[in-house]
Order: sequence, then C-alpha cells, then structure tokens
Amino acid sequence: MKYVRFEDNSGAVQEGVIMEGEIKAGSRLYDPSDVSILPPTRPSKIVCVGLNYQDHIEETGRKTPERPALFLKTPNTVASHEETITLLPGKERIDFEAELGVVIGKRCRNISAGEAMQYVKGFTCVNDLSNRDDQRIEQNWVRGKSFDKACPFGPYVVSAKDVDEHAKITLKQNGKVMQSSSIDQMLFSVPELIAEITKYMTLEAGDLIATGTPSGVGPIKDKDVIEVYIEGVCTLRNWFRIP
Amino acid sequence: MKYVRFEDNSGAVQEGVIMEGEIKAGSRLYDPSDVSILPPTRPSKIVCVGLNYQDHIEETGRKTPERPALFLKTPNTVASHEETITLLPGKERIDFEAELGVVIGKRCRNISAGEAMQYVKGFTCVNDLSNRDDQRIEQNWVRGKSFDKACPFGPYVVSAKDVDEHAKITLKQNGKVMQSSSIDQMLFSVPELIAEITKYMTLEAGDLIATGTPSGVGPIKDKDVIEVYIEGVCTLRNWFRIP
Repeated sequence: MKYVRFEDNSGAVQEGVIMEGEIKAGSRLYDPSDVSILPPTRPSKIVCVGLNYQDHIEETGRKTPERPALFLKTPNTVASHEETITLLPGKERIDFEAELGVVIGKRCRNISAGEAMQYVKGFTCVNDLSNRDDQRIEQNWVRGKSFDKACPFGPYVVSAKDVDEHAKITLKQNGKVMQSSSIDQMLFSVPELIAEITKYMTLEAGDLIATGTPSGVGPIKDKDVIEVYIEGVCTLRNWFRIP
Repeated sequence: MKYVRFEDNSGAVQEGVIMEGEIKAGSRLYDPSDVSILPPTRPSKIVCVGLNYQDHIEETGRKTPERPALFLKTPNTVASHEETITLLPGKERIDFEAELGVVIGKRCRNISAGEAMQYVKGFTCVNDLSNRDDQRIEQNWVRGKSFDKACPFGPYVVSAKDVDEHAKITLKQNGKVMQSSSIDQMLFSVPELIAEITKYMTLEAGDLIATGTPSGVGPIKDKDVIEVYIEGVCTLRNWFRIP
C-alpha cells in the first residue's frame, strides 16, 4: 500500500492511497498533478539516527557507535515534496543527507525488536538537511538540524512489506548521483532502532524516524534540485535557494 | 493575568483564568480543587537552555557559553502539576532542575530582542528532569532529556508584566530547599533567548522555552515530592516513583 496526504482544489486536506497512478480517497479519485502533495504525516516528533552506515562514519572520521546515536528534529522542520526551500542565510555549508524514513502507525512504548514492525505504517524518503556551520560547534544539534524546513520528507509512505530489504537508496544533486547505497547497510536495523527509542519515549502514530545517511553527503548550492530515491518507495524532490 | 488549562468534571478541556482563587472560563466559575489542572499548553516543541546561570556552570565544571547552549525536549515529556511521575528504571541518577518557563503567545520568526516580549504569553514553572546516566555519554541529549514525562510544567502561565524581574526561583525536595536563586541571574535574558532561537526556528503559540537552572541540582529518590516555585508565578508540585 502506498499512502499519500494532499490538499485538494477546495483546500481540504485528505488522506488517500495511490492506485494505478491515481489517488483514491474514500470513493473519489484524484489526478496527483491536480492536487498539492503534503508531507505524509504531521509528526509530533522526529527522531533521527546519526552514524548508521559504515561508509558515512568513515567519511566523518568518527567512531562506530555502540548504540544508536540519536538526535532530534522539531516539527518546524517539516517540508513537502516539490517545495522550494530557502535555506538559512550566511552559512558556509548546509548539506543534503538521503535517508530512509520510518513512519509510525500506532502509539508504542517499550517495544521489542521482534514486535516493532507491527507499529510501523511504512517507509518514506527523508532529506536530513544539516547546517554544518552550527552543528560542529554545538553540543546538541539544534541550530544544526532543526532550522525551518530542514526535514523535507515524502511524498508517499509505502508499507514495509512492499519494500525489498535490499532496496537501493540514492541521492541526485542536479541529476548527478552523489549518494548510492542500500538500506541493508544500516548498522542498526529499523526494529532495533524502534526498540531502543521506545525504551525511553512513547512514539505516536505519525511520528517519523530518520534512520541515517550513507556516504556522499555534500553541500547544497543556490538553485540546486535534489532528489532522494528509495527503490520501491518514492522519489522526494526539492529545489533550494540560498538568500 | 494568570492562565490555566483544565479538564472539567464532564471531561471537557477548557482554558480559563484564575480570579480571586477561582477559575473563570467563559461565564462560568470553577473551584480549582474540583477540576484536573492540565499542562498550560500543548507545545509543538520545547526548546531548552543549558548553562544559563553562572553558579550552575560552576557546579558542572563547564565553560561559560558564548551563545545560548540549546537543546530540545519532545512533546512526550509533557507532564502536569500534581502528577505522579514514574521515572525510567535502572538509572543511577535522574536529577531535578528548577527553571523559568516561557510560553509563546504568537507565532514568530526572526524576532529582535527588543520586540520579543510581544510574542510571549507569560511565564510558568518547569522541572527539567535529566537522566544523567545517558546524558553524559550521548552527543545529543535525547535519552537524557526526552524520556516520557521529563518535563512537568505549570500549573499557571502568568503575564510577564506581572512578574518581578528579580523574582526568586526555588526548588524544594521533600520540603527542603535545594535550589534558590533569582531569574535576574540568567546569563542570556528571555528576549535574548527568543532572538537567538528565532534566527533558526519558527516558534508557535504554545511552544515552551525552558531557560536554564541555577545551582543545586540533585538526584530524585523514590517517593520524593518536588516543588518548583517562582515568585509571583506559581508552584509546580510532583510526586516521583522509581520502579
């Protein structure tokens, strides 16, 4: 199943599913090009994982973590597929990071890895925008990771069972492949991440987990178009402006 | 003005103001002891400030920051006045931290310190519960600061103009004063904090800023009652259990 959230021509926000190229919402069908695609959920929180691909750990020069390296993005970071994102002014380097997003389907706390997937609605694409100027000089990456629009995600959420466990993850900057890996390269798996996070926090339906990025991260330039693709899931596309 | 949010006997959630010891909501009056006091807002995000009192910086052995040391608490941390909070099991040390809370009244972004107070609904009490076991070994304080119920706050929000700029802030553990300072001892003032945060993030009505704690932080023990008092604002009281 491929879920979508959208605003129709009347301004009403709806949830639907993609079927044969159309959006089915209740008994009605919509052409995706006639509606505004919204971020697929409104997460109460976004829990992110750093250093979860070995090749990215090597490019950062950091140590392999013994448990998931968690950080947060706040709800003001949410941005849509095909949205033009104006970045913070005056920064040397704001990077793209392609990531598999996990959308929670049901409230959960203290969940074992074995039962974790029952609480997952599905997978989506995330671009974990990272303001390195501030990130490298702050203990907690608030300015670095939670500036407005720092978390475009979507456009669809695809049931986990419909996604190959070796699915490719790719990021293109102006058409050029910059990141290319497979979601099977994650150090901590999705069930392991949910088990660890829910030892501490209740996850709510709609919450988002960003599971870390492979190697190849790099700076965004003015007028870039950046696409995050996960095989069998979707393509997330955004345009960028630097004021 | 002293604002309160509560659940009445019918289960309806209401907002009111405290007048002469009663709650006035619309045209009705309620006895505060007949209703359930709720956290005064449902923040979309909680932005916290570390190391904002010189005496607390000294007790932590850290350097005075050149700009506000920001971190986050997620919405699952919200807890009510007079709620009994069950802490994480198996931790050596979870600390109390008395803090002045700032409740945002209107959406804002890129606000100067000079205009910041126009966007503030008022002040409240916060107990910034801190799981030191995890905090000291993680880059971002997610397990350390965002475990469930780690942010009791309230019970009231008092207009900033009604609070003395030298108001005392006190924390009592089982009746014994453990923290005692004045909100005028903050290194970065409330307007300065809002100016810095809104360079990066849009603040929404209802969002909470926890402005840092003075010296005297210490571990919570099973069956403790802890009270955070800010002169002219309110007293926040919680009971604690360690499983």
